[in-house]
Amino acid sequence: MSDAPKPTSTQRALVILDCFSAESPRLTLSEIARRLGQPVSSTHRQVGELLRWGALERGDDGRYQIGLHLWEVGSLAPRSKSLREAALPFLEDLYEATHENVQIAVLDGHEVVYIERIFSHRSTPIPARPGFRLPPHATGVGRVLLAHAPIDLINTILAGPMKRFTAHTTCDPSQLRRELAKVRKTGYAISHRQIEDTSSSVAAPIRGPENAVIAALSIVVPFRGDTARRYVPAVLASAQGISRTLGAPVRHPDGIHIRNEAPTGFLPGQ
Amino acid sequence: MSDAPKPTSTQRALVILDCFSAESPRLTLSEIARRLGQPVSSTHRQVGELLRWGALERGDDGRYQIGLHLWEVGSLAPRSKSLREAALPFLEDLYEATHENVQIAVLDGHEVVYIERIFSHRSTPIPARPGFRLPPHATGVGRVLLAHAPIDLINTILAGPMKRFTAHTTCDPSQLRRELAKVRKTGYAISHRQIEDTSSSVAAPIRGPENAVIAALSIVVPFRGDTARRYVPAVLASAQGISRTLGAPVRHPDGIHIRNEAPTGFLPGQ
Repeated sequence: MSDAPKPTSTQRALVILDCFSAESPRLTLSEIARRLGQPVSSTHRQVGELLRWGALERGDDGRYQIGLHLWEVGSLAPRSKSLREAALPFLEDLYEATHENVQIAVLDGHEVVYIERIFSHRSTPIPARPGFRLPPHATGVGRVLLAHAPIDLINTILAGPMKRFTAHTTCDPSQLRRELAKVRKTGYAISHRQIEDTSSSVAAPIRGPENAVIAALSIVVPFRGDTARRYVPAVLASAQGISRTLGAPVRHPDGIHIRNEAPTGFLPGQ
Repeated sequence: MSDAPKPTSTQRALVILDCFSAESPRLTLSEIARRLGQPVSSTHRQVGELLRWGALERGDDGRYQIGLHLWEVGSLAPRSKSLREAALPFLEDLYEATHENVQIAVLDGHEVVYIERIFSHRSTPIPARPGFRLPPHATGVGRVLLAHAPIDLINTILAGPMKRFTAHTTCDPSQLRRELAKVRKTGYAISHRQIEDTSSSVAAPIRGPENAVIAALSIVVPFRGDTARRYVPAVLASAQGISRTLGAPVRHPDGIHIRNEAPTGFLPGQ
């Protein structure tokens, strides 16, 4: 947004939507105007345009909030929708086998964005929810995504400031590089007490039609030494199932990858 | 949108987003221009503004699609988010007890909009997914929502054309009025073979802080005579749990409703 030399009226209207967040889901007109540093009168006009289309709506208390129509249109985003639809049955199965938090995330810019999370009353409480962002260095899904990201992105993120969430968060670039190499080698990431002092994560890559890593799946469980390791086979199987559904090449035990084509018969000649 | 006598540039840009649908999630520039009946040049400029903010993005094939940023902002819509977050653990529990499709929906205008759906490989396949719309007369959630809607809305919907999905879809206004009265009386809706010939639905209302019906929960199971009825207690319990989480008054067996306050002790005087 800030790249544009002179924002158009459409861009000024869209920027209003960025005033809303999980922490501030409802705003008055003057709060919006104050956040944007612009007069209430022009804000009122722009808000009216967003209201008419359904990008905003007014809640029971008269404050503005993101509208159901924007949510509906947003639900069509292929990076969220196709991944979510392919993943959900596998997330359900993994959740049912473990009763822990299971989630999928993608990399957007320098951050991890959670696309879906399945949990229940019995799962360890964690902050991740759809649309939530966290830095990649400290999350299991982030390390999986970063391990398979272009080297320039890895360098940029490891060179930048890295937030320390707990006393155990790894913020040392050399140590993180070793972690990423291990993720590439083993095919999964196990991390302990990186975001919260009480939880561990096991994460694995989700691959698309060209075998590129397009998302990551993780399970977050209570930290109890290295016991999280027992979830590795289930996480790998679920991630592989989602990848296959998304058209990733089938991985054969002999290491040869073949394209995941429409099913054919098993008898020669069929 | 069509109410505005002369659309502003912001409105013309927003209308571009309405060209996308579940059936057409990816469009070329000329397809967008054709759908709007406007020149490619001005469409190109508007698309550029939407791209810059992240409302649109380009897929691997160069076509335009709804962007991840729009999905993120849309996820903040309170009518979807707060309901979804309160409901998800209960939907999980209900799903796990039944392995069938469980879903929540709200009324938007004259249609039912699905907010969340939990299912797995073992569930009956059905069309509902988040953002999907269906008419209220033919769905379990729709009948629950309609039963508690203002009388004007009931009259409008029952007076209008009602789509027949199967040979069993009830489209007779008098019969539907009787159904709605029954829903109000019993507190749930059971319907058979209304959307698909092979499925039944059990639905119940979700209430908010003022005890108003704000959403509906349903389970969709294979049609086998009246066996769907056995899901009524589970559906009612889940809907009641979500309502309580959303701050609905607690319903007592003697019929007296009290506000759902912070928990207090059970001993007199505490």
